[in-house]
Amino acid sequence: MRPFGSCPAPARPSASRGRGGDDSAVTRVPGTELDQVFTTDPVIEGMHFTADDPPFFVGNKAAGRVLSDLAAMGAQPQWMLVNVVAPRTLEFRRLEQIYDGLMTVTNRFGASVIGGDMAEGPCLELHVFGSGTLPRNKALLRSGAKPGDAILVSGALGGSIKGRHLTFVPRVEEGLFLRESGVVTAMMDISDGLATDLRHMLNMSHAGALLQAASIPLTAEAESFEHALYDGEDFELLFTVPMGRVDALRREWASRFDQEFYLIGRVVGGVGDLVLEYEDGRYELLDCKAFEHYVK
Amino acid sequence: MRPFGSCPAPARPSASRGRGGDDSAVTRVPGTELDQVFTTDPVIEGMHFTADDPPFFVGNKAAGRVLSDLAAMGAQPQWMLVNVVAPRTLEFRRLEQIYDGLMTVTNRFGASVIGGDMAEGPCLELHVFGSGTLPRNKALLRSGAKPGDAILVSGALGGSIKGRHLTFVPRVEEGLFLRESGVVTAMMDISDGLATDLRHMLNMSHAGALLQAASIPLTAEAESFEHALYDGEDFELLFTVPMGRVDALRREWASRFDQEFYLIGRVVGGVGDLVLEYEDGRYELLDCKAFEHYVK
Repeated sequence: MRPFGSCPAPARPSASRGRGGDDSAVTRVPGTELDQVFTTDPVIEGMHFTADDPPFFVGNKAAGRVLSDLAAMGAQPQWMLVNVVAPRTLEFRRLEQIYDGLMTVTNRFGASVIGGDMAEGPCLELHVFGSGTLPRNKALLRSGAKPGDAILVSGALGGSIKGRHLTFVPRVEEGLFLRESGVVTAMMDISDGLATDLRHMLNMSHAGALLQAASIPLTAEAESFEHALYDGEDFELLFTVPMGRVDALRREWASRFDQEFYLIGRVVGGVGDLVLEYEDGRYELLDCKAFEHYVK
Repeated sequence: MRPFGSCPAPARPSASRGRGGDDSAVTRVPGTELDQVFTTDPVIEGMHFTADDPPFFVGNKAAGRVLSDLAAMGAQPQWMLVNVVAPRTLEFRRLEQIYDGLMTVTNRFGASVIGGDMAEGPCLELHVFGSGTLPRNKALLRSGAKPGDAILVSGALGGSIKGRHLTFVPRVEEGLFLRESGVVTAMMDISDGLATDLRHMLNMSHAGALLQAASIPLTAEAESFEHALYDGEDFELLFTVPMGRVDALRREWASRFDQEFYLIGRVVGGVGDLVLEYEDGRYELLDCKAFEHYVK
């Protein structure tokens, strides 16, 4: 989530999101062959969910965002902590259902909620912190995309505001599979919209991209092509792979997952340029639109 | 900080604060001789600080609370992440000074801020998440106090609301020293007031305590004895040591630290009973007062 709707995000060197502008920070675990990944996301009523949303799925979203950040690096989620800020009037039953959603998705992917704290505040907030592990130096970063690489997404995009932003399943297993495949050059999750997030990846990778408009998969809820480009909170994986490795990866993927992945374009030269190619041969240079996915 | 001012704190098995009711959760680091400790604390404007407080010290407090939690287990702080929730009107200069305070105390104790996130919300909040390490199975818990042990505190208590709740130095070095001493049976930091926190320790340790009123050290700001018992946010260490080990520990401590520690009583039988002995021979059984340290 972009802080104040600015574009690009204001740089805070003192609170950078880890090496290479990734959502998670990678650290070494001395004496082992492991790296440990840390990340955190706030989920706030009125911004990320409404008072009317089913509490179970509010919890699913709060933990799912963090799990998605870990998945985007190819990490195995491990420990989660949850800070809750709540008004005094919050019904205990609602909080219980939020926790149920939070625990369910956390446990599903082999992680555990081991702590947290509560405080009183004017509106309901969940701050989830997560850590995960992966083999030393194997974290998939945003910065590795190379000209000639294929650009892929793990699922259809757009229209998540209709409900999927709450009910999504974080792509933890897909992220682990992709890291283990050894052919992925860059990866991130799509939280701010394909156009914005791909631009982050391109900037980190010092490259550009040519996308085939007709290849970008739209969800049933995406009312137009713009939704797939600019809606946020898809929580699908965006990744790059040398073009020659795509077919083999697709076969392996198909043996593991029900849903296919989509080849939507390729990495080219030209730092940060994001060009869309339409079927009629038109080209469009996409400009920088900020994602502001306020739920109200 | 107690969530809704209740006493005792409502139990949330799904979000317990780690083994034995401690503020931090202890996990193993497979393949090493290390344990890793995780903790998190929210710091919220209007509850933990005011809009008029010096921003540098707001940052000091936000990180210091987490460092104090890690210190209370005898852990070496390592990684910190910070979620900031802020209204759109927040001045960047103020945020910068908050980060300065946060980074200064974090770096002072050998830890690093490696990530975080920002979101917009109605009031300023800092959610700091921290991890630390210590040798396997060496975390100091609340649950190890034994009848006959001396009860000690690392500094004077009370009146922190006058300013020390913002400017305090977390007892990281003292916590490491005490863990390495090998003689501490239980430890925690005093965040909710001596009486309340000691009762937590006694409950976890299935023991009681007899305190000498005249031995409890008061700060210059503590206007009465009650302040030392019930004020919160002292962020001193409360620990227990077999009585026969206190003198040797005191000598070692004196060679390392400028400030002495204080022997304030001893652990006795009688689960959870907290008895205060006055110089005139009177005894008082302390009842359960909740700490509500609202700054406004």
